[in-house]
Amino acid sequence: MNDSFLLNGKTAKLLYEDHAKALPIVDYHNHISAADVQTNKKFENLTELWLAPDPYKHRLMRISGIPEQYITGDASPREKFRKFASVFPYLVGNPVYDWSLMELATVFGLDEIPSSENADRIYDTVTEMLGSEEYRCQAILSRFGIQYQSPVAGILDDLSPYSRKGFAPSLRGDNLLSPTKELIADLACGDNGSTTLDGYLAAIAKRLDQFSAAGCKFADHALDDGFAFLPDDGANDARLARLLAGEALPLQDSTALKSAILARLGAEYAKRNYTLLLHLDAKRKTSSRLARLAGPAGGYAAVGGSLRVSHVVDLLSAMEDLGGLPKTVLFPLDMKDHAAISVLEGSFSEDHVAAKVELGPAWWWCDHRHGMVNTFECISSFGVLSEFIGMTTDSRSILSFVRHDYFRRVLCSWLGEKYDGGIFQTDVRTLGEIVEKISFKNALRRIGENK
Amino acid sequence: MNDSFLLNGKTAKLLYEDHAKALPIVDYHNHISAADVQTNKKFENLTELWLAPDPYKHRLMRISGIPEQYITGDASPREKFRKFASVFPYLVGNPVYDWSLMELATVFGLDEIPSSENADRIYDTVTEMLGSEEYRCQAILSRFGIQYQSPVAGILDDLSPYSRKGFAPSLRGDNLLSPTKELIADLACGDNGSTTLDGYLAAIAKRLDQFSAAGCKFADHALDDGFAFLPDDGANDARLARLLAGEALPLQDSTALKSAILARLGAEYAKRNYTLLLHLDAKRKTSSRLARLAGPAGGYAAVGGSLRVSHVVDLLSAMEDLGGLPKTVLFPLDMKDHAAISVLEGSFSEDHVAAKVELGPAWWWCDHRHGMVNTFECISSFGVLSEFIGMTTDSRSILSFVRHDYFRRVLCSWLGEKYDGGIFQTDVRTLGEIVEKISFKNALRRIGENK
Amino acid sequence: MNDSFLLNGKTAKLLYEDHAKALPIVDYHNHISAADVQTNKKFENLTELWLAPDPYKHRLMRISGIPEQYITGDASPREKFRKFASVFPYLVGNPVYDWSLMELATVFGLDEIPSSENADRIYDTVTEMLGSEEYRCQAILSRFGIQYQSPVAGILDDLSPYSRKGFAPSLRGDNLLSPTKELIADLACGDNGSTTLDGYLAAIAKRLDQFSAAGCKFADHALDDGFAFLPDDGANDARLARLLAGEALPLQDSTALKSAILARLGAEYAKRNYTLLLHLDAKRKTSSRLARLAGPAGGYAAVGGSLRVSHVVDLLSAMEDLGGLPKTVLFPLDMKDHAAISVLEGSFSEDHVAAKVELGPAWWWCDHRHGMVNTFECISSFGVLSEFIGMTTDSRSILSFVRHDYFRRVLCSWLGEKYDGGIFQTDVRTLGEIVEKISFKNALRRIGENK
Repeated sequence: MNDSFLLNGKTAKLLYEDHAKALPIVDYHNHISAADVQTNKKFENLTELWLAPDPYKHRLMRISGIPEQYITGDASPREKFRKFASVFPYLVGNPVYDWSLMELATVFGLDEIPSSENADRIYDTVTEMLGSEEYRCQAILSRFGIQYQSPVAGILDDLSPYSRKGFAPSLRGDNLLSPTKELIADLACGDNGSTTLDGYLAAIAKRLDQFSAAGCKFADHALDDGFAFLPDDGANDARLARLLAGEALPLQDSTALKSAILARLGAEYAKRNYTLLLHLDAKRKTSSRLARLAGPAGGYAAVGGSLRVSHVVDLLSAMEDLGGLPKTVLFPLDMKDHAAISVLEGSFSEDHVAAKVELGPAWWWCDHRHGMVNTFECISSFGVLSEFIGMTTDSRSILSFVRHDYFRRVLCSWLGEKYDGGIFQTDVRTLGEIVEKISFKNALRRIGENK
Repeated sequence: MNDSFLLNGKTAKLLYEDHAKALPIVDYHNHISAADVQTNKKFENLTELWLAPDPYKHRLMRISGIPEQYITGDASPREKFRKFASVFPYLVGNPVYDWSLMELATVFGLDEIPSSENADRIYDTVTEMLGSEEYRCQAILSRFGIQYQSPVAGILDDLSPYSRKGFAPSLRGDNLLSPTKELIADLACGDNGSTTLDGYLAAIAKRLDQFSAAGCKFADHALDDGFAFLPDDGANDARLARLLAGEALPLQDSTALKSAILARLGAEYAKRNYTLLLHLDAKRKTSSRLARLAGPAGGYAAVGGSLRVSHVVDLLSAMEDLGGLPKTVLFPLDMKDHAAISVLEGSFSEDHVAAKVELGPAWWWCDHRHGMVNTFECISSFGVLSEFIGMTTDSRSILSFVRHDYFRRVLCSWLGEKYDGGIFQTDVRTLGEIVEKISFKNALRRIGENK
Repeated sequence: MNDSFLLNGKTAKLLYEDHAKALPIVDYHNHISAADVQTNKKFENLTELWLAPDPYKHRLMRISGIPEQYITGDASPREKFRKFASVFPYLVGNPVYDWSLMELATVFGLDEIPSSENADRIYDTVTEMLGSEEYRCQAILSRFGIQYQSPVAGILDDLSPYSRKGFAPSLRGDNLLSPTKELIADLACGDNGSTTLDGYLAAIAKRLDQFSAAGCKFADHALDDGFAFLPDDGANDARLARLLAGEALPLQDSTALKSAILARLGAEYAKRNYTLLLHLDAKRKTSSRLARLAGPAGGYAAVGGSLRVSHVVDLLSAMEDLGGLPKTVLFPLDMKDHAAISVLEGSFSEDHVAAKVELGPAWWWCDHRHGMVNTFECISSFGVLSEFIGMTTDSRSILSFVRHDYFRRVLCSWLGEKYDGGIFQTDVRTLGEIVEKISFKNALRRIGENK
C-alpha cells in the first residue's frame, strides 16, 4: 500500500502526517462481540476472521456472481477464500477493496493484492499467524491505538464483559419501541396487565442506570424505511395495553405508540448525558432467497429512499418539548439526504453544547470516499465542519479499525485540496486543529466532558 | 483576502477580470428594509449592523455552542461580537466565513480574520467608521454598484419608499393563499359574506396594478414542506366561504383552495409580465425553544426533504391551462432536487422567451460554492446554462451584495475548469459572453424588455 | 473536435486509445426505426435527419426562446436549421452540444461549431452528402461498428424487420400492464369474458416465444411517476374482469392489477433469459401547450422526483418469490436516486450471475458527463463497477451511436483520474480490462452466454 494512498497534494500529506496519523481512536458505535474480546478469541483461519463474519464481502462476492455455497454455504474455508481472491482485483473502486488492502498490510504486514495467483499463499501465511498469541482477538485490537470503543448491547444484555478500560457498552434500543410481554416481564415492570407508558419508561430507566454505571454514553435507534412521527394524542397507554393484550396494532397505532416511546426515551438519554444515534432509512426486507440462505443480517439490506426529513424534525421537536432532547447524531442511509440532514445542525441548539444535532459520518453502504466527501461538503457548507463528531466503524469486524485511517486520509486530502485550490482562506495550523478535532477530540468530548 | 480567492486557473481569472468583476448588480429578490434605506439608517456599532440582523451568523454561533444570551439575548453588543470572533476561525468552510471576510475587506478595508485576539480592535475600528456619513445605509449600498434591486413588500404595504431609481418592490404573496376576513376587508373586496374567488382575485388585481406602477417585476411565493397541488374541482368558492365564516378547513380543503388561488394568480402575474419566484420545501417549525428565544425567523428553519416535483409540474400546468403561466424561477431548498427541477426548463416554453421556467440560484442554506456548483452542473447538463437568470441575495443585510462577487468567482472558476480540462469545447470569448449574461444581462432582461 | 476531448491526463488517454476506442458497440436498448433500416431510408436534408426527429434538440431550442414554428411547426427545413445554429454556440455545457459536434465530425467530417455564420454552408454541405448512397440509413449505421442493437418493438409488432444480423427486437412491455379487450383479442386469449390472469399471461407467453425466436434478449417497462407496488391479494382476476368489462378502476385497484401482471411477467422474462430494463420516475404529462403543438413524445417530459425505492425492492422481491426474478437493470430518471438504486446490486443475487440487479447507465435527461460520473461513483462505491453493463443510447436517432464514444471517454477519464490521484490502488492493465468489460464485454455477455 502506497504511503500517499488517498493523499492528494502537499498540504494533504502534511495534515495527515502531523495531525492525524498518530492520533488514538475513539470508536463510539460498533458491533464488536464483547464475548470474543472477553474470551480473547483465537481464529482458526483467514476465512473465519476475515470473510465469514463480514457481510460487506459477502455482498461483493454475490455481485461478482460467486455461488452462495462459497459465500455463506458449506464450502471449505480455503475454497471460500480462493473464490473471494479470484474476483478481488476487479473490486477496485469499492471501499472493501481498500479496507482489505489496508487490513492485510497493517495487521499482517502483507503488501499485495489478493488474486487467484496468490490466494493460497496469503491464506496459509495469515492462517499460520493466527495460530500465535499475537493474533488473538485482544492482541489484534491492541494494534490500532483504540482509546475508547463502545459496542452495542441490548437493554437486557449482560454488561459484565464491559469492565475493560476504554470498552463501554452503548445501548441498542430498537426493541424498546416494540414492547412485548416478555420484554416487560424481563424489565420487571410489575403487573403487565396494568402497565402504562410511565411504568414502562420507569423500568427502562432503572436498567439505563446500570448502563450508565458501565460507562454507557450512547444510545442507538434504527428508524427504518417508512419511519413516520406522530404527535402524542393521549391514547398511547391504551395502545400499549392493546399491544400487550396480544392485539396486532394497525400501522397508524403502532406508529403513534413508537413515536411516544421514542420521544420520551429522549429525556432518559438526555438526563444521562447520552448521545442519541439515529440510523435512518434502512430497508431490511429485500431478497427472501438471501434471507433464507444467509440469515437476517446477511449484507443485502437496501435503502428505503424516501426519508421524510420533516418527520425527523418533528421527533426532535417533540423531545425538546418534553424537555429531553439529547445530543443527537443522524445517520441517513441515502446520500441524497446528507444535505437536508446536515441543515438540522442549525435547527436545534443548547447553550455550551456544540453541534447539538448533527449529521454523522457516512453510514454503512455510504462509508467510502464518495460518501465521506459528500458529508464533508454538506457539513461544512450547511454547518460547522470543525465540530463534526467524526468517524465510527459501526462494524462487526475487529480489523475494521483501519477505516479510521481511511477516513483521516480522505479528510486530510479534502481539506488540503480546498486549501491548495484557494477555496479555504485560512492557515495550515488552523486546518491541523480541525483535523485533530474531527479525527479524535470531538468524539472524545462526547464521552469525557459533559458537553 | 486573496485576489484569486475561489479562482482556480488562468481561464478562471481571465473570465473574472475581463467579464465579471466590473459588472453592475441586479438583485431581483431580497429582504432589504425599505424603511432603513428611506431613512438612511445609521448603525450604532458593528453588532447592530453585522450580527444582530443576520440569522446565518446566529445559526453558526449556536452550532458552536455559544449561549443564546450572546446571540439574540441581552448580552452587550461588544460581548456578542467577541463571542462570534472567538469561534470565527473555526467556521472556515461555511459560506458565512467567506462572506464575512469579503464584507470586512470590501466595505471596511479590513483584511484580517476575526478571532479572540483582534475582536476588540475590529469592533472599535468598524464602530467608529459607522459613525461617519460614508457608512450610513445609503452610502454603504452605493459601494456595490447596484443597478437594480427589488426588496419584497406585502400586498398591503406602503409602496412610497420604492420611489428611488433602481429600487422597486417585488411582491411577497404568501398571505394571499390564506385569505382572512381582515385581508379581504383591507383589499376592499366588498361584502365579505358573498366574496368569491373571482371577487378576491379582482381585488388583488387592483392592488397589483399599484405594484406595477411602482415598478414591480417579481412575485414570490413560498411553497413549504408538505406542498401539494390539487386540481380545481369547482368547490373552491364554497371553501372560501367556509374559511371566511371562520371554519378551520381540513388539510385537503385548504390545499385545494390554495391550489386554486395560486393557479389563478399566475394569470395576474403573467399579464403584468412579472416573473414568479417559487421558494420550495422550507420546514419552518423546528425548535420551539428557539422560536421562543429567537423569534419566528431566527435562522433555525430546516428542509422538508420530500418535495414532490410532480406537484410543482401540476401547478405550472394548471397555470398554463388557465392561460397564465408567468416566467417562473424555482428555488428548491434541498440540493437533491436541483437536478429534477432543472429538467423543467425543457418542460414549459413560450415563443421568444428564454428559460420560461428555470432553476434559480442555490437558495438560502444552499447559497455556497457547493450548492452553486451543483446548480451550474444541473442547469448546464439538463438545460441551457447561458440563459440562467443568475444570482440574487435573498438577504436582509445591506452588506450581503458581496455575494454577487462570490457567485461570479465560483461561476468563472467552474467555467474555467471545464475549459482548461477539455470538457467545454468552445472559446474564451463565448465563455465571456456567457459569464456576462449570467452575472448581469439575463437578470436585466427580466426587468427591462418584455422577454 | 479535439482528440483529447473529455480525456483528462495521460492514463485517461492511454485507456481510451488502447482499450476503448476501437471496440464494437452493443446498443441493447434504443428506438431506432426498424422500418427506416429495412427500407434503407434516404434523408432529404440535414433537418430531416438531425433536427426533426430529435426531441433533445427541440427542448434546447425552446429553452433558447425559439418560436415553436421553427421547432415542430411549419417553417422550412432550412429556416429550422438556421434557428438551431443561431443559438448553438450558447448551448455549450449541454450534452447535445457535444453530441452534435461529434456527429458532424464523425459522420460528415465537419469539424466546426454551427452558428449563424456557417449555418447555410453546413446545411448545404450535409444535405448534398445525404443525397448519395453512402449516407442512406444503413450506410450511416455501418459507420459505427455496431455489433448488436435491439430496438424496441411492441408485443404485437411485426418482427420481420428484425431478420438482419445483430439487429434483434427488444420488447417494450408498457401496454401489457393496462390490458384492453382489443389487446387481449389481438393476443388471441380466447373468450374475453372469462379471461383470467393465467390466460392473459399464457397468451403473452406465446407471443414472447416469437420474440425469442427473433433474438429478443431484453424487455423494458416504464414505471412512471407515482409508481407503487402492491402485493397480490388474490383479487386480481376479479379486477381484470372489471377492467375488461369497461370499468375504470380506482387507482388502488389499477395499481394492484399492474403489480400482479408485472410481477408475473418477471417469470416469463427470466425463463427466456431476458434482461428486464425498468425505466423509473418519468412524469410525462407536463405542458398541455406542448402536447398540443409537439405531440405526446416531444421532449418535454419531466422527472417525478419522489421515487420510492422501497417499492422497487418490493416488486423485485415479489418476482423472486414467484421464482422469476430476471436479470434487471434499473434506470432512475432522477440523479438523486442513483445512490439508493445502486445499493440494490447487493440486495439480490443468483449463483453464477454477476450484477443480477444493477443501476443502468445514466438515463435520458441524465445522459451526460455529470450523470455518468455520478453513476460511476455510485456503482463503484456501492457495488462492483467492473460488472457494470455500460452504455446504451435509448435514442431514436441513427447518429446517436457517437454517444458510446462520449461514454467511453468519460469512463476512461474518470478511471484515469482515480488512478493518477492515488485513489485507485491497482495497475493500468486491470483498469484496461475494466474499460473493455464496461464498454463492450459486459453487455455482450447479456446477449451471448446465458449469464
